Order: sequence, then C-alpha cells, then structure tokens
Amino acid sequence: MSELTEMKCVACQVGAPLATATEIEEWQPKIPDWEIKEIEGIQRLERVFHFNNFKETLSFVNQVGEIAEQEGHHPVMLVEFRSATVSWWTHKIKGLHANDFIMAAKTDQL
Amino acid sequence: MSELTEMKCVACQVGAPLATATEIEEWQPKIPDWEIKEIEGIQRLERVFHFNNFKETLSFVNQVGEIAEQEGHHPVMLVEFRSATVSWWTHKIKGLHANDFIMAAKTDQL
Repeated sequence: MSELTEMKCVACQVGAPLATATEIEEWQPKIPDWEIKEIEGIQRLERVFHFNNFKETLSFVNQVGEIAEQEGHHPVMLVEFRSATVSWWTHKIKGLHANDFIMAAKTDQL
Repeated sequence: MSELTEMKCVACQVGAPLATATEIEEWQPKIPDWEIKEIEGIQRLERVFHFNNFKETLSFVNQVGEIAEQEGHHPVMLVEFRSATVSWWTHKIKGLHANDFIMAAKTDQL
C-alpha cells in the first residue's frame, strides 16, 4: 500500500465496509500520534495538537478545514485557547474508513 | 446596566468574584439562546449555532475568534460539519464572569 499522505479520499456511502482489523494494524503505525477512541460505540481517530496561542490554534484549524474541503471529508475539532483536538471518523458508516487514516496522515503533515 | 453588547471585557484575575445569582438573573434574559451548563462543577454558557455547510461553519468560527482576540477572552468551540458549539466561561475563576455574558451577547451579534 502506498503512503497514506499520497492517497485521496474516496466517496464513501452508507453500507461501505469499516476498516478491517488488518487494515487498522497496517495503518495505525503510520499515524502513531493518533489514538483510536470509542465513543458511543463509534471508533474515531483523535489527536490533540498544542500551540503557543489562540491565533496559532485558529490558523491550524483553518488549515485542517482547507484539506477537509479539498478531500470532501470533515473532522470534528475542539478548539481551545492553546490546543485543537481533531477527530476523524466516517459518520455514514459509524466508524473508521480508510479515508480517516488518510486524513489523519494529511493532518500530521500540516 | 448598559447593553451587554456595548460593554468591554475587563481583565479578570484569579480570585475575582463569580457572577452573582442576581447578575445572572439580570443578564440571562439578554442572551436567551444560551444555556447555562455545569460540567465538572464549572458553569459555562453554551449555544449551538447551525450552518448550511462546513465553509459557513468555519467562517463563523473565525469571526468568533476575531472578537475573542479583540477582547482578550477566548471560548471553547466544538466545530462540526454544519454546526459550532460555543462555550464561554472564565478559567481563572472556574465559572461565569460578566465577561462571559458580554462575549455571548457579542457572539449573538455576528
């Protein structure tokens, strides 16, 4: 499999398969700073990014917003004074899809 | 008391008094769309704003960021695809200060 950062998100429909255990095992080491969290039965990738001030935090949030718009896949972000917590998962399939690992890797690149 | 939207945030130090019950009773009707939520013993003002798409959501988040920087008082924002949940409280005094009501009113104006 090529690098996650070089992959593009694919259109994901209701009923598309969740990432398999084997896929997660392959992809997770490529994004070691992301934690898989399960909330209300839905797995998501979560990473907290720290900054020096609010301006830097908001600038990062906008950069994530830009790649989200480019790829047509959007995260949930908790924006605080000096941090942003980014969560990727796929609403339509209530869990993790390859798209989420791709977006986590692209977020790491920012 | 003048309108909340015309007031400026004041520097708030550790030990400053929390908003009193009387003040909250006076200010809350001026920001009727905000709910007072208590999380881990800390009261905060919370309102969910809805939008048509992510671009609009992010644009609103940036506008809130701008008034936050102007006033030197910052919210926590949960940014989702078509909504932003804004929470105002004062970390230094672990609860609600006049500043939070002022910022909620200014957020409503955006």
